[in-house]
Amino acid sequence: MKHLALAALLSLVAVPAQADTLVDNVNGITLDKDGKLVRFTGLVIASDGKVKQLLDRKDKRPERPDFREDGKGRTLIPGMIDAHGHVMGFGFSLMLLDLSETKSLAEAQAAIRKYAAANPEMPWIIGSGWNQEKWGLGRFPTAADLDAAVPDRPVWLERIDGHAGWANSAAMAAAKVSATSKAPEGGRIEMADGKPSGVFVDAAMALVNNAKPKPLARDLDRALYLAQQKLLEQGITSIADMGTTIADWQAFRRAGDKKQLAIRILSYGADIDNMAIIAGQEPTPWLYDDRLRMVGVKLYLDGALGSRGAWLKQPYSDAPGQKGLPLLTPAQLRNKMVRASMDNFQVAIHAIGDAANAEALAAIGDLTADLPGERRWRIEHAQVIGPADIARFAQLKVIASMQPIHQPSDRLMAEARLGPDRLKGAYAWRSLENAGVRLAFGSDVPVESSNPFPGIAAAISRTDAAGQPFGGWHPEEAVTRETALDGFTRTAAFAAFAEDRLGTLMPGMRADFLIVDGDPLMASPDEIRRMAPLETWIGGYRYYKRKE
Amino acid sequence: MKHLALAALLSLVAVPAQADTLVDNVNGITLDKDGKLVRFTGLVIASDGKVKQLLDRKDKRPERPDFREDGKGRTLIPGMIDAHGHVMGFGFSLMLLDLSETKSLAEAQAAIRKYAAANPEMPWIIGSGWNQEKWGLGRFPTAADLDAAVPDRPVWLERIDGHAGWANSAAMAAAKVSATSKAPEGGRIEMADGKPSGVFVDAAMALVNNAKPKPLARDLDRALYLAQQKLLEQGITSIADMGTTIADWQAFRRAGDKKQLAIRILSYGADIDNMAIIAGQEPTPWLYDDRLRMVGVKLYLDGALGSRGAWLKQPYSDAPGQKGLPLLTPAQLRNKMVRASMDNFQVAIHAIGDAANAEALAAIGDLTADLPGERRWRIEHAQVIGPADIARFAQLKVIASMQPIHQPSDRLMAEARLGPDRLKGAYAWRSLENAGVRLAFGSDVPVESSNPFPGIAAAISRTDAAGQPFGGWHPEEAVTRETALDGFTRTAAFAAFAEDRLGTLMPGMRADFLIVDGDPLMASPDEIRRMAPLETWIGGYRYYKRKE
Repeated sequence: MKHLALAALLSLVAVPAQADTLVDNVNGITLDKDGKLVRFTGLVIASDGKVKQLLDRKDKRPERPDFREDGKGRTLIPGMIDAHGHVMGFGFSLMLLDLSETKSLAEAQAAIRKYAAANPEMPWIIGSGWNQEKWGLGRFPTAADLDAAVPDRPVWLERIDGHAGWANSAAMAAAKVSATSKAPEGGRIEMADGKPSGVFVDAAMALVNNAKPKPLARDLDRALYLAQQKLLEQGITSIADMGTTIADWQAFRRAGDKKQLAIRILSYGADIDNMAIIAGQEPTPWLYDDRLRMVGVKLYLDGALGSRGAWLKQPYSDAPGQKGLPLLTPAQLRNKMVRASMDNFQVAIHAIGDAANAEALAAIGDLTADLPGERRWRIEHAQVIGPADIARFAQLKVIASMQPIHQPSDRLMAEARLGPDRLKGAYAWRSLENAGVRLAFGSDVPVESSNPFPGIAAAISRTDAAGQPFGGWHPEEAVTRETALDGFTRTAAFAAFAEDRLGTLMPGMRADFLIVDGDPLMASPDEIRRMAPLETWIGGYRYYKRKE
Repeated sequence: MKHLALAALLSLVAVPAQADTLVDNVNGITLDKDGKLVRFTGLVIASDGKVKQLLDRKDKRPERPDFREDGKGRTLIPGMIDAHGHVMGFGFSLMLLDLSETKSLAEAQAAIRKYAAANPEMPWIIGSGWNQEKWGLGRFPTAADLDAAVPDRPVWLERIDGHAGWANSAAMAAAKVSATSKAPEGGRIEMADGKPSGVFVDAAMALVNNAKPKPLARDLDRALYLAQQKLLEQGITSIADMGTTIADWQAFRRAGDKKQLAIRILSYGADIDNMAIIAGQEPTPWLYDDRLRMVGVKLYLDGALGSRGAWLKQPYSDAPGQKGLPLLTPAQLRNKMVRASMDNFQVAIHAIGDAANAEALAAIGDLTADLPGERRWRIEHAQVIGPADIARFAQLKVIASMQPIHQPSDRLMAEARLGPDRLKGAYAWRSLENAGVRLAFGSDVPVESSNPFPGIAAAISRTDAAGQPFGGWHPEEAVTRETALDGFTRTAAFAAFAEDRLGTLMPGMRADFLIVDGDPLMASPDEIRRMAPLETWIGGYRYYKRKE
């Protein structure tokens, strides 16, 4: 009765009262509240879904547990917390055309053609995941490239990082884009022969996005279901949703109301308007047995490196004269931060370029004196930081919310964009840690896979899936296994004001854990990369069990 | 411990488990599920907040109830269900300037001046409740009338029926309204000397509404609190919210999440967009112990009689050539009805004029064959019905959701607007009942007071607060006391698919009831009009007790 398979997730109506559960004979690993490693061989879960006791080999076991599972000596670790993801975006990426595995433009064109043929009823072909860098294309793709695959229906495909979109001619016509169209502030229309080429960067994506059909509630509900299914499989038990819209929130609530919310969602409103209409004057309470809470707001200060939207102090090495764009003026940024903070919402600022990180830190510095209390300012990504700014993170107690997997994914692109000198402060996990900064780790799903194990492997090795480069890229920035585990558990919880209930398996905490097919403290990076949950438990219930 | 005073409502965090509660020695009255009158002297409430047993004088009492209340022989009736109100609009009317008690333009001007002086920080003076008919003004008021009271700040005041707004010059300037402004479809700008006079009817109200500052979440939360407080005092335990926006819904949820939702809200989304973003593919489950549910959608087919927005078959008697306006085309109405019904949302159509009622019935007739199942189509107001259409209500099993208090309020205005011949099908409660139509009664708060007792008095007497006209206006349309009680309890619940839990006090139903200072089956209409709850109980808890 303890096994709630995914099918059951949809029919789960009431969790019956239960006595103690014992998961025994495990190689148990958790951090304690201070980050010290704790080992155990048995885990007792109380009827409220919280950890009751961690047992040592010699401790006496409860005599008549309601349910007993034999761990057969396998490793048990806390459920992974993804400190930065996009739940609905992930769900849609699972529903819509996914180009992230394509290795060339031709391969992408074939995939688009096939998807369009398989979905004749779709008014628009919508998808994402393309990356001209990975294709070795040496240029952005064009509308003509897309027309060659689908000429008769609008096609609109987001770049892997979400910071650019690629339209065919039908989509541009539907959006009424022409040679005289102007990009809105914070955006850029790529041009070719005096006409829009088909690629729209950052704020200019709105030109096409506003014309595309809106997803229906049933699409949202389906996307959330698919996202949860995948996260459970990958061992993610909680995720910070970085930019929740009111429509997203309603999907979360519909799932919660029907007892179909398994994953814990730590929500940050998409800018002030969504934050305020959802949560009102203060963060929401914890809802659905700690499955959902709006804790703060997500602000975008710049774009991404791949699309050259990240805001740099000096021009891009591979695009002289371009420095990227701030998406908010200094006054706008500070006004939004004050507005949120006055009502005790946490503020998470997207900052990728070194100029954006410096400005985010400056704004936090400006406001700190007037906003006493523990704010736990977060900078999301913190990808390129001027070396002098690293100490500022620590001084201002800013949490660096980073995604280790970006480093191997971005390596060649980052080298091209930044040149050798600026790489020192790029993906600088260990430097931040040494300066005393708390690191929360995530995936940025669907920009990257949400699978946390390749993230842990990257964090400790600075290598990619092929183990490249040998010895790691700037290996001095690799962190220990304990720090990587901490970033995906204890500090990811702290970063969302959830350390009183999530992130460790100490008594009193929610019993969110994984039984995995290896020991992340012992395995090689390559083994960790291929590691996967055998079981995923949330709140003392098993929601996923891998088919043998 | 059973008394949850209103202050406690805001701090109530968890309802403790309890054993049986006995409310004894009462003159108990309820209808049973078939509408038959049932009398009892004791009420036993189980720990789940539901009625466990109704006791006769000779029945044995539970020996050791957790709590016992002596009713001292007073009358106990089911909690009143308002089948048609506007919860947030009501709350705002309690916060904002209220002109509903003013008896002349001069009195209104004085009240406006005083309110503006008392609220110097308000950027706009916003209010409602004016009625030029009640003032005996013989014309709409003008911007100049308002400028005389407040020249320096925008003032915007809705008419009592919500179908017209009155702006001063500063408000029109802020809204950029000028002599060349055009009314949107479904609206009218009143003109004087070739310029907007200051009054905007129906859809034209948007011109000024769009310019006024939006309420903040804290305003919404405060408004909901005030509305609940007033409803509890008046004995309303459930209310159908006719036109819930996403912002309203979020306020309801914030209250529910914090255990601050006392009143049960049966929500109908404000048109399709709000319905879909809130509830998705189907009505929501019952939330917060049956305190909140979105059950359907509210559509507006026409305006109101007072502002001549109601859509009539023949011109207004007092405005030759004007017939009012349909707000939806036949195709729009049917498309919205199908869209909602396909996902099993109930449809409630606002129809006041006889043309609007005929069209609503025609649309229902057109769709009935293609939409099997029990739809419980509702027509809201059903104020002026062509006599031949009365039978159509019964044939199509349409619920007539009517507000008895409109009849005495509207009497003189309705006579002027409709002339003598059309009055036959106006406020025609008994004719509808005799034809076999189910009558759900409400207040249309804040258009009228939410107090249900004057509504019951009007329903059974067709007289106003002064007992006028003697013998009742078209007294053949008065209903029995039992029918009036039924309209505010059992059928109001049925009309919102809630008859399995609300509306009667039979065992198994939620223990929502009032102890009142008179017997509505015995008292005179005048006594009923002045009747008030001594106590209001919801779900087995006392939320209100009148100060002695």
